[in-house]
Amino acid sequence: MPHIDFKNDLPGIRSAMAFRPETAGPLNQLAQILLRDENGLSRADRELIATLVSYRNDCFYCHNSHGEIACIYLDGDRNLVNQVRQNFETAEISEKLKALLNIAAKVQNSGKDVNEADIERAKKHGASDVEIHDTVLIAAAFCMFNRYVDGLATYAPTEMDSYPVRAKQIAENGYGTHVYSQNQPK
Amino acid sequence: MPHIDFKNDLPGIRSAMAFRPETAGPLNQLAQILLRDENGLSRADRELIATLVSYRNDCFYCHNSHGEIACIYLDGDRNLVNQVRQNFETAEISEKLKALLNIAAKVQNSGKDVNEADIERAKKHGASDVEIHDTVLIAAAFCMFNRYVDGLATYAPTEMDSYPVRAKQIAENGYGTHVYSQNQPK
Repeated sequence: MPHIDFKNDLPGIRSAMAFRPETAGPLNQLAQILLRDENGLSRADRELIATLVSYRNDCFYCHNSHGEIACIYLDGDRNLVNQVRQNFETAEISEKLKALLNIAAKVQNSGKDVNEADIERAKKHGASDVEIHDTVLIAAAFCMFNRYVDGLATYAPTEMDSYPVRAKQIAENGYGTHVYSQNQPK
Repeated sequence: MPHIDFKNDLPGIRSAMAFRPETAGPLNQLAQILLRDENGLSRADRELIATLVSYRNDCFYCHNSHGEIACIYLDGDRNLVNQVRQNFETAEISEKLKALLNIAAKVQNSGKDVNEADIERAKKHGASDVEIHDTVLIAAAFCMFNRYVDGLATYAPTEMDSYPVRAKQIAENGYGTHVYSQNQPK
């Protein structure tokens, strides 16, 4: 049961966003830029970073939600998403993305864990400054979103078929005010 | 030295914000609502939550920046800010604020650490659902801001007299686009 009365029965972060629309606005705008921008990282890369960090933060709602969105961008390759969750170093992804996921995994624990060798590795495989910036900020932002979702004990659906349905809506329409509308399907 | 070339020599989060204004917009809007809103928690309460979480994340730039802003709202009582950093349970603050700082301290580690007893304690001392919501989201947001600042190895001034100067500007003008302007004093 949620720690506070959201006055709605929406799942996950959407219940908290509907409860406090003043903060939902900038949170959705941040997600829209960080996860949908096509400057540098692909949308699949961005959602994989979000999924890895959420998985390591043990946030069931977030890692399943973003894992399913990544899956759509990867033409349904759920196995690849699981490889990233379990061990991104051996996943069938580029060396550049492995280097960026390594930075994201460091940030998940502490920003201070990122060292010069981590940055050099990413640059060696072609990562730009904007891509490194976005990797750090996506990882940091999910350390916020995960804590927001779990710190208020929001409701996470256990019916796993609800996640692909919602993921399709996000992949098609992006992150916006509709995300926390009560008129949308759960 | 910063991990990427920000193309500016601003301190702390402001260097990253000037580098990527697309994400600076919603980040500043989020800070503006979470730290300046007067619905429920006072501005001093909000900055103390930010200071405690930043201190526990060992983010030198953030805990000094927000500690100085809290200090202004507390009529210059830097000793009280230090009490909160060191042990908020024995600080000269209300039982309600202690209960909320307890929740923030749990969130700093993991959202899952917040339990029903923590929430009951806060409610017993008069915390509303909006105040609990804002406490969780401020704590979660600083887990993002701290990782953003340290994950990119931004420059943190060691001349401590720069922090009160900047704090006065924020206390007077709030968090906004001017925060990352290069035309502002450092």
